[in-house]
Amino acid sequence: MQLRSEKKTSQLRYFFKPESVAVVGVSRNPGKFGHIIFENFLKSKYKGHVYAVNPKADMILGKKCYPSVKEIPSSIDLAVIVVPAVEVEAVLHDCIRKRVKAAVIVSAGFSEIGHTDMEKKITEVTRNKMRVIGPNVIGIFDSHTHVDTIFNPTHRQERPPEGKISFISQSGAFGAAIMDWSASEGIGLSKFISIGNRADVDEVDLLEYLARDKRTGAIAIYLEGAKNGRLLFETLKRITKRKPVVLLKAGRTKEGSSAVSSHTGSMAGESDIYTGMLKQSGTIEAKSIEELFEFSKALAYQPLPKSNRIAVITNGGGFGVLCADALIENGLKLAKLSDSTIKVVRKHVPDYIIVSNPMDLTGDAGCSRYEIALNAVMNDPSVDAVIVVLLLQISALQSDIVDLLVNFKTKKPILVCSTGGEYTNLHKKMLEKRGIPTYSSPERAAKAMLALVEYSQVIKKKILSQA
Amino acid sequence: MQLRSEKKTSQLRYFFKPESVAVVGVSRNPGKFGHIIFENFLKSKYKGHVYAVNPKADMILGKKCYPSVKEIPSSIDLAVIVVPAVEVEAVLHDCIRKRVKAAVIVSAGFSEIGHTDMEKKITEVTRNKMRVIGPNVIGIFDSHTHVDTIFNPTHRQERPPEGKISFISQSGAFGAAIMDWSASEGIGLSKFISIGNRADVDEVDLLEYLARDKRTGAIAIYLEGAKNGRLLFETLKRITKRKPVVLLKAGRTKEGSSAVSSHTGSMAGESDIYTGMLKQSGTIEAKSIEELFEFSKALAYQPLPKSNRIAVITNGGGFGVLCADALIENGLKLAKLSDSTIKVVRKHVPDYIIVSNPMDLTGDAGCSRYEIALNAVMNDPSVDAVIVVLLLQISALQSDIVDLLVNFKTKKPILVCSTGGEYTNLHKKMLEKRGIPTYSSPERAAKAMLALVEYSQVIKKKILSQA
Repeated sequence: MQLRSEKKTSQLRYFFKPESVAVVGVSRNPGKFGHIIFENFLKSKYKGHVYAVNPKADMILGKKCYPSVKEIPSSIDLAVIVVPAVEVEAVLHDCIRKRVKAAVIVSAGFSEIGHTDMEKKITEVTRNKMRVIGPNVIGIFDSHTHVDTIFNPTHRQERPPEGKISFISQSGAFGAAIMDWSASEGIGLSKFISIGNRADVDEVDLLEYLARDKRTGAIAIYLEGAKNGRLLFETLKRITKRKPVVLLKAGRTKEGSSAVSSHTGSMAGESDIYTGMLKQSGTIEAKSIEELFEFSKALAYQPLPKSNRIAVITNGGGFGVLCADALIENGLKLAKLSDSTIKVVRKHVPDYIIVSNPMDLTGDAGCSRYEIALNAVMNDPSVDAVIVVLLLQISALQSDIVDLLVNFKTKKPILVCSTGGEYTNLHKKMLEKRGIPTYSSPERAAKAMLALVEYSQVIKKKILSQA
Repeated sequence: MQLRSEKKTSQLRYFFKPESVAVVGVSRNPGKFGHIIFENFLKSKYKGHVYAVNPKADMILGKKCYPSVKEIPSSIDLAVIVVPAVEVEAVLHDCIRKRVKAAVIVSAGFSEIGHTDMEKKITEVTRNKMRVIGPNVIGIFDSHTHVDTIFNPTHRQERPPEGKISFISQSGAFGAAIMDWSASEGIGLSKFISIGNRADVDEVDLLEYLARDKRTGAIAIYLEGAKNGRLLFETLKRITKRKPVVLLKAGRTKEGSSAVSSHTGSMAGESDIYTGMLKQSGTIEAKSIEELFEFSKALAYQPLPKSNRIAVITNGGGFGVLCADALIENGLKLAKLSDSTIKVVRKHVPDYIIVSNPMDLTGDAGCSRYEIALNAVMNDPSVDAVIVVLLLQISALQSDIVDLLVNFKTKKPILVCSTGGEYTNLHKKMLEKRGIPTYSSPERAAKAMLALVEYSQVIKKKILSQA
């Protein structure tokens, strides 16, 4: 088992914080990937220098083109390579001569279509000389430094705001779809990396790097097959003691797994083995796309609950019932509210409200009634976490509920469940942007709560093993 | 067991197609429910006559107010009652004298807070004289006739477009949230009915009515507890032979069930009993809010598959793998494509495409490549249904894919899976509005496909039993 040295890991910083970038293969054609990537850099808030390389052009998008990386007059940290597969090796030789620190190889046409020799060349040529992500990737995105090699135009794929989730994806298209989705929901990302064929950098390298990254609060991984299962397991085991990791394994079934081999050429393992491995390593397993992100945002933004006793506060009785069902069906408990909690809420709310858990504040509840309930429940030692249901169809509830939840001083996790249309989605986005994870249904909120409880057990075990 | 007579059922038409409506209790205050409901009627495309009743006002919203229903100069089909609970009985006496055919009692303050006697009065007073929905409801909505007694203002809760799903909800707030959600996703509804405390009309009446309703293609029900379990079972058994019914039972767990009794006062049953009962009766059970609607739209808009052999067509390999996993994990099969299908697709697509199932058309696939694949797969006798994955982040795929799918002549079901942000959501809405159900993830598409397969088995059993 080959452990990754800290030095090699720290070199990955050139992907996310390069002072200069060369896009190699910038076409004049605005529909081509090289052109789109170069244009995205020019339009973005990226603060370093960006250079275009194209031996057949003098100027593109008003910028000088260099015939090769070697001709660029200043040093280059990151090369984004978007040339035909057969030309990649020569470009890499140029990069090495230029002492380029890192390269993202967007070009496809390697092991994924059987050209394994060409891919091995990449590995051999760059070994110990520079770090490489790819080939066959849409590359990387950093919301903070604005490094963005994603070749989907922004009118097709929105870019997510700054945030705490970092996301490693073995599939580029999957990553693009998820970034687009999280952007539209206001869920912030720190970094996104599509790892493609993994000629050099793989999921383990990135886990090591992101575990030390201060801007990453939780790591989400979409994986079709590990490059080195044993090493992945050991790495996860160590890292999850510090930082939560959520993993979605594609190719869990025999049929899915054989689809993987025709997709990326890598072999996917057995579902049960993965499930067991993930559990043992303290990794939270997601079973769907939604779970991957919905667990990650809870883990990235909310504190961990002490245990599994959950309170539900709602302005619609039906949603309270559905929350109760979903919590119990996921192995969680409805907190038994203490007498003093019941007493204090009873005193301040109308008679027709039945003070229990779920606590149905009824349709005429405004922000102040939520405040009374939240204060009491959050100070109740028999409550570990709370799901707040907000049905915003009802006029009694105003936008100030967002401020109440965002500014609520608590060390207990709050997850919001809110189902609806435009008005609701606007408020969900306001909450997401300010660190309160929101969910479209009780079932999804309950599953995210379970992820928090499960990860709190991982951390507890760590404390016990250190004691 | 009391069977519902056809005559009594047919009286329910006055709720959905009234020629005249009286809103009783129209406040001057624009925030009050009576005012909002009256205003909604005036602003909507409802074609009948609408009258306001308020003994303390002459004019509201530019319309004459009548001191009581009795004073209205023409006949009234439907009364919407929004007065304090203690005044409801008197209003009902007026309605009966006026020969009003049906009443929606929006007013709350009856059995749900222990005032069962007041509720019994409603039942007794109106028996065999008029039909009553409520009390304690947000009432009804008909997308075709524009009857709309929902008291949430339209800027808080959008109204869904015309469509084929009819939705019965025991919780008003739940119904409002779902209508709002389906409106924003472009999912059409035929009718919505919140049944509240069920002093008269209950879920069985509505099932009978909707089963005969030509505008209803599928029935969705949110139920906390049946009024008469045995009768519901027998009714479902009969109706599901003609029309698909999807049911979400809240209060499946002991904890959820005790929350039900404090919410509506009705008793919820045991989860396993319900699951068994629903299966036996040919009803499709939903286990979450999403499932309730996502199953219903598949059943309302798509033909039934012959069996469970599913093809997947995608422009992103990862999504193909996830679809395969999700189909298998839901007990469905990946269709084994026939040789002629493989041959014909092979002939028309680039060499680097691996023609199999899932069929990954890769990121440069445009509409024409989808057309080749769809044509071949749909004509393949070994394929019963198809999931089409559309990753719209990629520029190669244009909006004409919507027309291709909508105009595709087939008797096999098509479900679309598309994950993304604004651009994607726009296209999903275009597809939904034109009858192609779309899903945000492979897992959700696969579950909806299972609902289609399960219902096709219900229909097959019916054919066998008739033979």
